[in-house]
Amino acid sequence: MKLTIERAVLLKALGHVQAVVERRNTIPILSNVLIQASGDHARLTATDLDMEIVEEAEARVEREGQATAPAHTLYEIARKLPEGADVTLEIGGDDPRLFLSAGRSKFHLPSLPPGDFPVMPAEDLEVSFSLPAEDLARLIDKTRFAVSTEETRYYLNGIHMHPAEREGRKVLRAVATDGHRLALAEADQPGNAGDMPAVIIPRKPIGELRRLLEDLDGDVEMSVSEGKIRFQLGAAVLTSKLIDGTFPDYERVIPRGNDKILRVDRAPFAQAVDRVATISQEKSRSVKLSLSDSNLVLAVNNPESGTASEELSADYSSEDLSIGFNARYLLDVAAQIVGDEAIFEFADSASPTRVTDSGDPNAEYVLMPLRV
Amino acid sequence: MKLTIERAVLLKALGHVQAVVERRNTIPILSNVLIQASGDHARLTATDLDMEIVEEAEARVEREGQATAPAHTLYEIARKLPEGADVTLEIGGDDPRLFLSAGRSKFHLPSLPPGDFPVMPAEDLEVSFSLPAEDLARLIDKTRFAVSTEETRYYLNGIHMHPAEREGRKVLRAVATDGHRLALAEADQPGNAGDMPAVIIPRKPIGELRRLLEDLDGDVEMSVSEGKIRFQLGAAVLTSKLIDGTFPDYERVIPRGNDKILRVDRAPFAQAVDRVATISQEKSRSVKLSLSDSNLVLAVNNPESGTASEELSADYSSEDLSIGFNARYLLDVAAQIVGDEAIFEFADSASPTRVTDSGDPNAEYVLMPLRV
Repeated sequence: MKLTIERAVLLKALGHVQAVVERRNTIPILSNVLIQASGDHARLTATDLDMEIVEEAEARVEREGQATAPAHTLYEIARKLPEGADVTLEIGGDDPRLFLSAGRSKFHLPSLPPGDFPVMPAEDLEVSFSLPAEDLARLIDKTRFAVSTEETRYYLNGIHMHPAEREGRKVLRAVATDGHRLALAEADQPGNAGDMPAVIIPRKPIGELRRLLEDLDGDVEMSVSEGKIRFQLGAAVLTSKLIDGTFPDYERVIPRGNDKILRVDRAPFAQAVDRVATISQEKSRSVKLSLSDSNLVLAVNNPESGTASEELSADYSSEDLSIGFNARYLLDVAAQIVGDEAIFEFADSASPTRVTDSGDPNAEYVLMPLRV
Repeated sequence: MKLTIERAVLLKALGHVQAVVERRNTIPILSNVLIQASGDHARLTATDLDMEIVEEAEARVEREGQATAPAHTLYEIARKLPEGADVTLEIGGDDPRLFLSAGRSKFHLPSLPPGDFPVMPAEDLEVSFSLPAEDLARLIDKTRFAVSTEETRYYLNGIHMHPAEREGRKVLRAVATDGHRLALAEADQPGNAGDMPAVIIPRKPIGELRRLLEDLDGDVEMSVSEGKIRFQLGAAVLTSKLIDGTFPDYERVIPRGNDKILRVDRAPFAQAVDRVATISQEKSRSVKLSLSDSNLVLAVNNPESGTASEELSADYSSEDLSIGFNARYLLDVAAQIVGDEAIFEFADSASPTRVTDSGDPNAEYVLMPLRV
């Protein structure tokens, strides 16, 4: 194999694929990126066995072939090479190492046999459709903060995505929950997304996908089967296994009949929560909301570090109510609200509270109260 | 005590003093800042017993007095309060806590008796002089990277500062070394700095001092005795104990007769070192310099991660030489060089190398070679 590639092109492609590679690997070849040169491009692949990213980049191929090299090292070298450099990658002859040269810089990097590189089978997935990159980004942003990190409930370690219907409108829905809070977002249902199975996309590919979406305008091609999902984003293709589990029946958790309604300005509310939470305990970070006529008082009482309270004017006219929440959860929800107001729907101090966004009818949140 | 202070003024003063406070303290009051209100100002003090920072800030004092409160919490609250807020701090009556209010935010913070706060005695120190803030900043920047972190050789855990003479010119000299490299910088000797004892200023006050210098134009008042040093920087006063030890006779380590001279462009040299070091081993990070007529080759050979080499044109006309250095140390020195060229003076591959800066006659560096 011998190819020459612009440093900026190599850096961008490596930047996309190398993040998949874990810092420590018990299987050595998983630290490597697979480089395949043919036609007028180099194809870079990285995998952790559960997900892979493949990206094609323009290159001048002098001798077709393939090689592997340590992904992070190769990325670091590309990053440190001067702008505008041409990078030549070459392997062959007696030397089993990959030879990289650029200007007066020369590297020999250890290379493992490309035949050992675990490439995911390129099978066709059942359902395919395309949706706007911004829709997918929004579905992720509005839900991923609620994804659980608790490994025992592995079926909560991802975003649940499935076709649904809301008031007669067909939507693609994303849901995440960690048992303490839930986030749900919807987008217009693309083409034949109605045929896709309900899936749970794990946390890691969600993160990588979101990163790839940064660089993308236009549409994403999504393909889904029972066990796998694939996203085509420009020159990059991300394929991931799905979480093999059953997502809980979340609809039952979302309270839609709560009748005590609080409307509060998002920004002052978030700032006040952040302030009073300064003295809350690291772990529970409990903040008490006390509601009375047109008035909201946020309070924290921590035996070790004192008390904090702040009053906010608020649109509230139901009976008086005191209810506690984790400050972090309130801030996470507030951070996703795009409208001027957050709308809280309470039942009582022990029941789930629904939160909606005055500026986005396509997202809703549920918070479990804490005892205060 | 009762006082009102502008949020920005409080934030700046707290920002200066709170960094002294360690995250964990076995003595509870060391987590606190002492607030003393009198006349038209609040005086804030923080200490770790080895150093203290005191800063005076303008305030409207309604009732003179003093109090203590958790430094980091108070700083976090001030940071989160809205711009332009007036902050009232109050203590007295039956409540032993400090009451903080700003707009509709109210906090009660635990307060320990101010009488228990360990204030450093405000004795006069023997020698006092003033020097430009930029001179002091430069002395620190050009040497602190070489300060040792090895606790067994505690006398190397700081910057050695003393009056000296260089070619008939009186200077204030700063020196730091960790046994593997040495950095020396000089400034014009201020007023009666010639009378100051040789001191070793510990790493932590050096860091805080450098931070305070960011906000300062003009001059710094320095006062020194055998055991203590004090810096007056605008409204802030930093006082620190000195390291009680003998700094080694560093003059003997600086080779002044080395006759193999290499002049190399700083920026391309630093970039090339950084590139080839990508594949060096974490620990030794050894880079080999091979010198021959007008030519410099940087090379790294790492059994695990391959080889790297890069050629640079260089001004060198002595006999061929191969010598190894820690890449980190080469980069640290290169980062301090302000001129276009770094000038290396070698004796042989096993002896200390002197490095100087084509743009700064007031600094010099010594690097011990590694075996390669």
